[in-house]
Amino acid sequence: MQYKAEIHVTLKRTVNDPQGLAIRGGLHSLGYESVDTVRAGKFIEVWLEADSEDEARRLADEMSDQLLANPVIEDFRVQIAETPSPSGRGLG
Amino acid sequence: MQYKAEIHVTLKRTVNDPQGLAIRGGLHSLGYESVDTVRAGKFIEVWLEADSEDEARRLADEMSDQLLANPVIEDFRVQIAETPSPSGRGLG
Repeated sequence: MQYKAEIHVTLKRTVNDPQGLAIRGGLHSLGYESVDTVRAGKFIEVWLEADSEDEARRLADEMSDQLLANPVIEDFRVQIAETPSPSGRGLG
Repeated sequence: MQYKAEIHVTLKRTVNDPQGLAIRGGLHSLGYESVDTVRAGKFIEVWLEADSEDEARRLADEMSDQLLANPVIEDFRVQIAETPSPSGRGLG
């Protein structure tokens, strides 16, 4: 069955985030003075075949740990949804 | 009141995603042959002051349109949560 894993990769709280600071600076320059803090992370969608939702989650956790996130400085969280193949996309 | 906007920025479906393709190649090399498609996007968390949730959403939509996303090739979606200040962070 086809599942879609939505993976959020975020910097750990104690790690400095220069990209977030740059975005914050840009927003302040545009007049959004009410912006306090900005943190920048990654959002990765993975469509994969698996026998069950548990299997899909296990695979996505493994992939995140091995390739998608750097466990030294980043956290990740995985959400799984059953989904039709992303047909008409032709980008995979 | 302090709100947190969670902003997902993703490439439009018709736009090629070389980063997603590279991740897919890496996952296949690691043995995850069941991976079909990968799409890479951004996840941006913004803590901001606003008078209401609607106001926070309006601001976050504007920011996304002006700075965070490139509307020509990217879509974005905004979720708002009321939240305590990210105190102890000192990174803003």
